[in-house]
Amino acid sequence: MNIEIKTRVEKDLLGLKEVPFHCYYGVQTLRALENFNLSSTKLSHFPVFIKALAMVKAACADANFKLNKLEENKYNAIQHACQQLNNDLYHEQFPIDMIQGGAGTSTNMNINEVVANIGLEYLGHAKGEYIYLHPNNDVNMSQSTNDVYPSAIKIGLLFALDQLNQPFQSLIKSFESKSNEFSHILKMGRTQLQDAVPMTLGQEFAAFAHTLQNDLKKINQIMPDALSVVNLGGTAIGTGINTEVEYRILAIQALSKITNKTISSAPDLIEATSDMGDFVLLSSLLKRTATKLSKISNDLRLLSSGPRAGLNEIHLEPRQPGSSIMPGKVNPVIPEAMNLACYQIMANDLAITLAAEAGQLQLNAMEPLIAFKLFESIDLLGRAMRMFEQKCIQNIRANAEHCQALVDNSIGIITVLNPYLGYETTTRIAKQANETGASILELIRAEQLLSDEVLASVLAVQNMVHPKQKDAA
Amino acid sequence: MNIEIKTRVEKDLLGLKEVPFHCYYGVQTLRALENFNLSSTKLSHFPVFIKALAMVKAACADANFKLNKLEENKYNAIQHACQQLNNDLYHEQFPIDMIQGGAGTSTNMNINEVVANIGLEYLGHAKGEYIYLHPNNDVNMSQSTNDVYPSAIKIGLLFALDQLNQPFQSLIKSFESKSNEFSHILKMGRTQLQDAVPMTLGQEFAAFAHTLQNDLKKINQIMPDALSVVNLGGTAIGTGINTEVEYRILAIQALSKITNKTISSAPDLIEATSDMGDFVLLSSLLKRTATKLSKISNDLRLLSSGPRAGLNEIHLEPRQPGSSIMPGKVNPVIPEAMNLACYQIMANDLAITLAAEAGQLQLNAMEPLIAFKLFESIDLLGRAMRMFEQKCIQNIRANAEHCQALVDNSIGIITVLNPYLGYETTTRIAKQANETGASILELIRAEQLLSDEVLASVLAVQNMVHPKQKDAA
Amino acid sequence: MNIEIKTRVEKDLLGLKEVPFHCYYGVQTLRALENFNLSSTKLSHFPVFIKALAMVKAACADANFKLNKLEENKYNAIQHACQQLNNDLYHEQFPIDMIQGGAGTSTNMNINEVVANIGLEYLGHAKGEYIYLHPNNDVNMSQSTNDVYPSAIKIGLLFALDQLNQPFQSLIKSFESKSNEFSHILKMGRTQLQDAVPMTLGQEFAAFAHTLQNDLKKINQIMPDALSVVNLGGTAIGTGINTEVEYRILAIQALSKITNKTISSAPDLIEATSDMGDFVLLSSLLKRTATKLSKISNDLRLLSSGPRAGLNEIHLEPRQPGSSIMPGKVNPVIPEAMNLACYQIMANDLAITLAAEAGQLQLNAMEPLIAFKLFESIDLLGRAMRMFEQKCIQNIRANAEHCQALVDNSIGIITVLNPYLGYETTTRIAKQANETGASILELIRAEQLLSDEVLASVLAVQNMVHPKQKDAA
Amino acid sequence: MNIEIKTRVEKDLLGLKEVPFHCYYGVQTLRALENFNLSSTKLSHFPVFIKALAMVKAACADANFKLNKLEENKYNAIQHACQQLNNDLYHEQFPIDMIQGGAGTSTNMNINEVVANIGLEYLGHAKGEYIYLHPNNDVNMSQSTNDVYPSAIKIGLLFALDQLNQPFQSLIKSFESKSNEFSHILKMGRTQLQDAVPMTLGQEFAAFAHTLQNDLKKINQIMPDALSVVNLGGTAIGTGINTEVEYRILAIQALSKITNKTISSAPDLIEATSDMGDFVLLSSLLKRTATKLSKISNDLRLLSSGPRAGLNEIHLEPRQPGSSIMPGKVNPVIPEAMNLACYQIMANDLAITLAAEAGQLQLNAMEPLIAFKLFESIDLLGRAMRMFEQKCIQNIRANAEHCQALVDNSIGIITVLNPYLGYETTTRIAKQANETGASILELIRAEQLLSDEVLASVLAVQNMVHPKQKDAA
Repeated sequence: MNIEIKTRVEKDLLGLKEVPFHCYYGVQTLRALENFNLSSTKLSHFPVFIKALAMVKAACADANFKLNKLEENKYNAIQHACQQLNNDLYHEQFPIDMIQGGAGTSTNMNINEVVANIGLEYLGHAKGEYIYLHPNNDVNMSQSTNDVYPSAIKIGLLFALDQLNQPFQSLIKSFESKSNEFSHILKMGRTQLQDAVPMTLGQEFAAFAHTLQNDLKKINQIMPDALSVVNLGGTAIGTGINTEVEYRILAIQALSKITNKTISSAPDLIEATSDMGDFVLLSSLLKRTATKLSKISNDLRLLSSGPRAGLNEIHLEPRQPGSSIMPGKVNPVIPEAMNLACYQIMANDLAITLAAEAGQLQLNAMEPLIAFKLFESIDLLGRAMRMFEQKCIQNIRANAEHCQALVDNSIGIITVLNPYLGYETTTRIAKQANETGASILELIRAEQLLSDEVLASVLAVQNMVHPKQKDAA
Repeated sequence: MNIEIKTRVEKDLLGLKEVPFHCYYGVQTLRALENFNLSSTKLSHFPVFIKALAMVKAACADANFKLNKLEENKYNAIQHACQQLNNDLYHEQFPIDMIQGGAGTSTNMNINEVVANIGLEYLGHAKGEYIYLHPNNDVNMSQSTNDVYPSAIKIGLLFALDQLNQPFQSLIKSFESKSNEFSHILKMGRTQLQDAVPMTLGQEFAAFAHTLQNDLKKINQIMPDALSVVNLGGTAIGTGINTEVEYRILAIQALSKITNKTISSAPDLIEATSDMGDFVLLSSLLKRTATKLSKISNDLRLLSSGPRAGLNEIHLEPRQPGSSIMPGKVNPVIPEAMNLACYQIMANDLAITLAAEAGQLQLNAMEPLIAFKLFESIDLLGRAMRMFEQKCIQNIRANAEHCQALVDNSIGIITVLNPYLGYETTTRIAKQANETGASILELIRAEQLLSDEVLASVLAVQNMVHPKQKDAA
Repeated sequence: MNIEIKTRVEKDLLGLKEVPFHCYYGVQTLRALENFNLSSTKLSHFPVFIKALAMVKAACADANFKLNKLEENKYNAIQHACQQLNNDLYHEQFPIDMIQGGAGTSTNMNINEVVANIGLEYLGHAKGEYIYLHPNNDVNMSQSTNDVYPSAIKIGLLFALDQLNQPFQSLIKSFESKSNEFSHILKMGRTQLQDAVPMTLGQEFAAFAHTLQNDLKKINQIMPDALSVVNLGGTAIGTGINTEVEYRILAIQALSKITNKTISSAPDLIEATSDMGDFVLLSSLLKRTATKLSKISNDLRLLSSGPRAGLNEIHLEPRQPGSSIMPGKVNPVIPEAMNLACYQIMANDLAITLAAEAGQLQLNAMEPLIAFKLFESIDLLGRAMRMFEQKCIQNIRANAEHCQALVDNSIGIITVLNPYLGYETTTRIAKQANETGASILELIRAEQLLSDEVLASVLAVQNMVHPKQKDAA
Repeated sequence: MNIEIKTRVEKDLLGLKEVPFHCYYGVQTLRALENFNLSSTKLSHFPVFIKALAMVKAACADANFKLNKLEENKYNAIQHACQQLNNDLYHEQFPIDMIQGGAGTSTNMNINEVVANIGLEYLGHAKGEYIYLHPNNDVNMSQSTNDVYPSAIKIGLLFALDQLNQPFQSLIKSFESKSNEFSHILKMGRTQLQDAVPMTLGQEFAAFAHTLQNDLKKINQIMPDALSVVNLGGTAIGTGINTEVEYRILAIQALSKITNKTISSAPDLIEATSDMGDFVLLSSLLKRTATKLSKISNDLRLLSSGPRAGLNEIHLEPRQPGSSIMPGKVNPVIPEAMNLACYQIMANDLAITLAAEAGQLQLNAMEPLIAFKLFESIDLLGRAMRMFEQKCIQNIRANAEHCQALVDNSIGIITVLNPYLGYETTTRIAKQANETGASILELIRAEQLLSDEVLASVLAVQNMVHPKQKDAA
């Protein structure tokens, strides 16, 4: 079978090349496809990034049009193309590998070519007739990959973080809701895995909610500001060579309007062109959340361990059969998957750190890896949070009786009796419990050291798990 | 539009579930698909791993058949199915996410279900009629995920490493070939980026070849042995519960035959069930190679820097236009992409380390991430090496004249004149060169310190870049 | 020889033990010394941490005294002891290893014992007469290691960051000063190590100043707030068991006064007891600065490479002889040492991340490593910055003529001639330069394409390194 | 008070400098002390490294003497000095920081100067009278830091690994001994923290022994060979400039004799001069062991959790009081400290990786950090292993009754009854147990499904924890 694919011929510095006619991308994208076949993740995997690139292109076209450098029909064509991309169309036209050399040139040329060809059809021309709308001269006018690419990464990350807020907040709410549900379940607190003093299961889940809330707050407090400062207009190395002074201001204004965010210009464009500090910071914050979520997953797996030979304080809803050889075994697969996602995010932080440190002189050529790993981490974190909330946290049940039994049987309970019985007596009772295996309560009752009434009051949940009110002392 | 998809109903511990009829996988794979939607990498992305799983299934069926536990027709059906998978068929039937909870249970059930359904059709039954060939009872007979899964990872890695050898060796040969080509080009050696003493460009490229050769040797020397020791037969926790003593031996023998490799049984199956040490070791070796390749890429980028304001000792063939704003600029995109690949592999090593450390008691639940990242690292390394060799190393040209000019103009050259002129004179000449900007040779000639003949002999390539032969002293 | 060391006998849960009489620390510190002999870094290595511990002890004593739980003479003795420690006295009494098990218990007992014994002498008693002032009952009253230790780490880090500000700012100012000094030196900008377009050396150094300024701002903006929120009063697990409600408030007030900082109570003390998020964040920010400083060091080493076979744009003052075999060779040892320090800080971030993730349930037992590595990173960063500024940056000299020669000889200069000569002509000239090795200026002059006057104006520094003013267009 | 310190004046490339007269080190060491004050770890902290440096110096002197380049009295003086250093004398004369720029030049000059001055006194001269024995011309004859330093690191690591073998083996033996002691204690195995099937506590400890044994074997199998190949004789960049061909061979022979190890010459000295691959490999192996020891520590902390609200299968001997607020609480401080040490080693591996990747062209200037972190990791690992063995493993006691009770009460026990009762019955019994909380044994007995005799046989330790012998089936 012999299929004939219609092609058009395009040209660049390296010469002529046939491009399949149906493709909106052109010769330079094709070269990137040939050069880089490394990861299994393509640019098309991250729609927010494509949209951000389109927004930056639209903003630059706007500035060029206002400065009378771009003709009106070309301007309209570019705006139309960018609008289409923002409507999630043509995203399959971004097939290049996220791992690419060239400091993002391939990504920039991919968007330049796709915008040009969509625009050409809008203007009634055929794809490839760049004389009417040129990827470089028109779409990339007054731009360099070195200012467009980092600016688009930042815009894309702003949108990605907006999207992350939803699963993040849902997860926090789910923990809060469980905290309320479990607010009266007394259980043993544990430090260094050793029995400590009582608390409620509600308090334990409230801490999960709070610690994530702290992270979300910190991310929202730090990152939008940091990511809104872009180097657009700096062109090749931040000196703004071959642009006019007004261009940068107009482009940033347009970008603010298009993104509906307050974008501003970096105070030192040379610094901003090569610096990866904001990306390192964002990755660090994602890693911070990952360490917390991994710790929470570990805790949930510990608390649900058993059922007979473990802690067994909570019950996770079965999500899939756990073993072919051990009938009835069910495993905590969702927290486990969360652990894996967290390790991936922690490892991505290392990749980003390595890439950031490797910048040289006026540019960081490793930026494509930074973009890749940041978009991946946010995407993965969002998916994992949604999974965690919907397939695990929502359906956690407390084994209230077992929790209470562990408290009643604990030696740690003796701590709260200190103020009533004195250190000497409690130490003697604790020692006796340790040696005989008896429970503290049994021993207290056997010696009639405290009336059942007083004992009940002392051991009431509210009196065990908070500081003493003055009058209660 | 209302498309009706024919389904069949399957059942597991959690209840009934409709499975699209055309799918060879079943209910448990479906649950995994619903549970885990995290990364963009599916099991189907790693054919060697699917084949390895099929080989392990075939080996276990063989043992069970020999022990009269598996009927002949079922045995034949399983062998047929595994053969199909080894012929690269049905690989799209492994759609589950590489990031999965459950310590590999989903992967094991995916292969169990696909083998069962291929086998059922072979036996003339419909998919899902598990009464004739059951994913658990028959395909997974005498097995647990906990022994099948790590064993299959090891087998898969053995094959993946076999595949890595080709691009690894090609790359080494390419460096060797360039080393020969450049054997007579004299250039300045540099230590701490400061001019040191002369060497040949051939020696520089030979070192690249040798350092990679060392790695390939080390990998081939260490890993096949380590990965050939499997815990198959240990079942749930390594005690081999519910298997017969002969089973393990027969299964290992069958596995050796099927894989055409010398597979052996771990001496302590309990240790082997939870230990990830061999995977950590492999990842370390891949990371070691990544640090070397990254260093080599950095060197090539340094050596080709310029053309006017850099070292400019070598020329890399242009692979794509480098800048829209700076006419004629070409960037070292292939070494840059290699750097990124290396950073990814170094970060994968961290993910693997984190997962390995997180094992608990009789199992490491984080094993799926280890499998994912190892297969990814090998795959990425192979692709990157192929790219590096074909799109960069092969076509490197030396700027021989510039190399020689840098030597002639260097102060470092004075070092070789020490034995002829004495330390006092050479120090004076060096100082003079430094202050006046003159070249050492000019000064020597001006003062007529050595005849042109002697000078030519001393500065001959072969006398500069090797220890002195006794008679030459 | 038989030296008799006078001892006193002390007692704890594990029994009796002889303590050298001259030691202010007691039995539990001694046990820690016996248990942990791992790193070469002792608690005494970090005076700010010892002072912070003393401040926390003083604050708790204050609260206990106000609540009438601590007698006045004991209170005075504790205050006296803490004051002595704040005056840098007795710091040699903290000999325990920074790597210690027990989640900080040993550190807490070390300060409890030293404060008690200094206090005892103040009260006219002998060391060890704990009946008059007890390490646990009095000095540690209403406290648990689990709230005292993390609170003291945070206070200590606040002071450590205060100290870091000085070298950080000095370094920034040094870069700014060099930026002014170099403001008129034209040089080639480089992207991806390839010649790009001109800039000034002053702009390059200004970017170094700015990028560090951003970090210092960010640290000062984020960390003081985060570190000022402590879990003091939460006692064992954050429930504040066996304290009165007023205690926590009084202790925090006292701590604010003693530290002269606005300290506040964590809103969720259970969360705050086990969470390491603020420490992870601080480490991330230090790592961010480390990646920047490492990049800057790399740049300085590149720019000073040569002198003949490298870029040679700047000159670093020699700090030590560079080679015994190559006369006159001088190496960039200070930037190299800065690189090493940065790698150490980046690695410390991993140690902190690992430790943070390893928290379990109500406590993070790995906290001592977090404290160790954070204090070490800040200390190291401060020392390295001071070294960098005083022994390198201050004395950098520009090789102005060589910088200018590289620009004059560059092809990249053609970019600025685009608006005057048109794309076609400039491309032809660039190509000719590439082939013949001639400089762009020579070719322009040879063809008399622009008058020397116009050329001088176009190539004036101020016109090359900024966007065009409207009237200049 | 005015203390007068007697000094002598020394001179180097940078000028004159007063050196305290009592110091055996000289001007260049002094410059390093002034330049680098970064870490708290000095060269004197690693005696094996100092000895290795001395051995290399002695070997080179031997070669120079045999080649008639070094006079006999100088040769004798050098040998005497090196011998003194090998006898652990003068180690306080190595005060320079392990974090140092200069690729090890300071370390090399420190040994050169100390050897020269010890030698001078041996020859009857005063320290500093270098005319009779010169640090560079004589002690460093035919050498460059670039070959001496990496060679000495390797020799030092060989000795450090020799020393590591002892605590490593002791720890393994301790686990083996416990394995024997616990061989008849039945307990529940756990996978994914869920109850699985029975095993013995002895099997669990045997796995700890085996997994460490594997590591020690691997280290001893791989590293001595790798570290015995040195680049001595390569001088500045590996070309052996200014040496005679025989020199390298003689120096290596002498080094083999002095170290009593089979040292050989690297086949490509240029590669060997800049490559850090062997160090990366060693660090990886240490990291591998660290992940295992951390996992084992985690397991021991889990198994000893409780005593009432945890697993409580084993008892760790108390090493220090655990809490001031909770009477009688004892914490697993030794395994915790082991965790911390492991995290440190894992982080060191990152530092080493970063440094290895940062090599440039003919040298890796980051080598001092690699040396520092490797010696630190080995030292720390040895100390931690010794602590672990002596203060924890040796004294572990099993809570045999509780272990047995957990098995008796488990549902997992049903798995072994499968072959006797069939899958249908066992599933029904398991479900009933789950719902009622009854034990499997109770239910079996209540229904009289198996005689007590048969049950006893089935549940005998030896039948539960191994594959079935054929006749037993």
